[in-house]
Amino acid sequence: MQVTVAVDCMGGDHGPHVTVPAALDFLRLHEDVNIVLVGLKDDIDVQLRKATSTLMARTAVQHASESVTMDEAPASALRGKKDSSMRVAINLVKDGTAHACVSAGNTGALMAISRFVLKMLPDIERPAICSMLPAVTGRTYMLDLGANVDCTAEHLLQFGVMGAMLVSAVENKERPSVGLLNIGEEDIKGSEVVKHAAELLRASGLNFYGNVEGDDIYKGTTDVVVCDGFVGNVALKASEGIARMLANHLREEFSRNLLTRVASVAALPVLNAFKRRFDPRNYNGATLLGLRGIVIKSHGSADRTSFRIAIGRAAEEARSGVLGKITDRMSVIQENAA
Amino acid sequence: MQVTVAVDCMGGDHGPHVTVPAALDFLRLHEDVNIVLVGLKDDIDVQLRKATSTLMARTAVQHASESVTMDEAPASALRGKKDSSMRVAINLVKDGTAHACVSAGNTGALMAISRFVLKMLPDIERPAICSMLPAVTGRTYMLDLGANVDCTAEHLLQFGVMGAMLVSAVENKERPSVGLLNIGEEDIKGSEVVKHAAELLRASGLNFYGNVEGDDIYKGTTDVVVCDGFVGNVALKASEGIARMLANHLREEFSRNLLTRVASVAALPVLNAFKRRFDPRNYNGATLLGLRGIVIKSHGSADRTSFRIAIGRAAEEARSGVLGKITDRMSVIQENAA
Repeated sequence: MQVTVAVDCMGGDHGPHVTVPAALDFLRLHEDVNIVLVGLKDDIDVQLRKATSTLMARTAVQHASESVTMDEAPASALRGKKDSSMRVAINLVKDGTAHACVSAGNTGALMAISRFVLKMLPDIERPAICSMLPAVTGRTYMLDLGANVDCTAEHLLQFGVMGAMLVSAVENKERPSVGLLNIGEEDIKGSEVVKHAAELLRASGLNFYGNVEGDDIYKGTTDVVVCDGFVGNVALKASEGIARMLANHLREEFSRNLLTRVASVAALPVLNAFKRRFDPRNYNGATLLGLRGIVIKSHGSADRTSFRIAIGRAAEEARSGVLGKITDRMSVIQENAA
Repeated sequence: MQVTVAVDCMGGDHGPHVTVPAALDFLRLHEDVNIVLVGLKDDIDVQLRKATSTLMARTAVQHASESVTMDEAPASALRGKKDSSMRVAINLVKDGTAHACVSAGNTGALMAISRFVLKMLPDIERPAICSMLPAVTGRTYMLDLGANVDCTAEHLLQFGVMGAMLVSAVENKERPSVGLLNIGEEDIKGSEVVKHAAELLRASGLNFYGNVEGDDIYKGTTDVVVCDGFVGNVALKASEGIARMLANHLREEFSRNLLTRVASVAALPVLNAFKRRFDPRNYNGATLLGLRGIVIKSHGSADRTSFRIAIGRAAEEARSGVLGKITDRMSVIQENAA
């Protein structure tokens, strides 16, 4: 199936000189994808000058006169910038021109505009941010990573369904396991909301593992880890923080003196293999789950490689049928509850 | 000042054959500390056979006939085991025989018994678990790490006061900075509880920095990071999880084949320096803050080195006058609020 991805070329810290080359790189690697580049036409065209006619045949440019800035209030972006590249890209998903869209822009604005334009899937009350993380046994999908500060048990149940259906759709796992993030494995642990969410998840028909703890995210104990957006965001950023501190310190230690620099040359293949495995760029592209359309959020600081990976996630999810799976599963749960 | 530390020798995964040698190691290094070893007298005496008379002069043994198991319910340990080594060690703090106590036992039981025996400091409603973590710029003290699942804004304020007074007492910083863990730096972010806590902290007279995010813990943006116990526990365990995954992977990469094993020999001094800096054993010993006495919780799996470090924290805090500082600061805040 040929899929079309709309790319917000203006979002993020870098804009068209990173987003357009990343899109062309992606087209080169994947013949079954078309891309609509959205943003200031002149700026995009400059970046397209060197593109081959083969690639241009699968590329369209959609002009958008405005851009949402990184620090703009979501409400102002939503109400004041009807012709922003972000909004136009989302509109392309809404009207069926594109099967998915990608933006490295302001997360709050992307969430607000997506929700306004696309609306929510039936029986899903809130969108959640879901991301793939590296784990000892492969990968873990975690949500919510920051869209919802306060969650009810029902929201957490919905996140569980969305995460499980995403893994089922993109990883071809029939019954992905779902863990509920808590501060102990015992059922008696945690807040009332979390305890109630465990009951709902247990009754949901999902492959519910039970409670998991922070370190289970990286052990890969379950395919999906569910939590509220406050906890998820803090856990993700704390993980990034310690990983960065350790990597920087290792780099410093290896460049301390002549002897350690020689050692670093010897260790280079090992360090490179290590870097390849855990390079955060390979995990770029968080999914805004729960909407009637596929919206992928790239890191604002994404470079060319990293943004290309996020486009890949959009194409993969567009093909996966994840939205239908979520809708089907939610309707079964609603029927059983009724 | 000569201080006395009561050591629960039976707690933790290993018991007297780790806790007693660790205590003797500590006595050897610190002449200004006495230790009371609490637990089954016969088991402790076996470990003391080789101790020199110099060390024995600063060592006492206090028999306790029971032990709290690692999976015992706190309420049962509290009500059913009046002569547990944990309880007897805490009693020694209560009656003034010891200035502090250390246990590697069951956290919930330690918390419940400490609270029952020692009571809370004036104006402090809940005890919090506080730990020192490595940061780029030195170290960060974080609380609560799991004692309190649901916190009010007032609890978070009290945690801020306790954390700041601890850093002020043990690190000799006059006005330690305090950050409130949130999912964005802006004041509008976060739950109502967190927003209200920010107002209270701002009015408290503490050196309040404002909101910090998960990665700020390891950047060392502030001396103290305040959060509820659910978020703190998850963030800490997620950090431990990713650090362990990265370390294990690095070890595997270096032992992959002959070439990488040769490289690892060359890289050994660097890897050892790295390990020394971030060895989690050096950060062992969490403080149960808010009680009328100093109680240090060691990791249950602590080895001899690690448990010795926890005894060191107990001695350091016993000497620091932290409890007086907390009481004084809370009474100023109460007066200003009245």
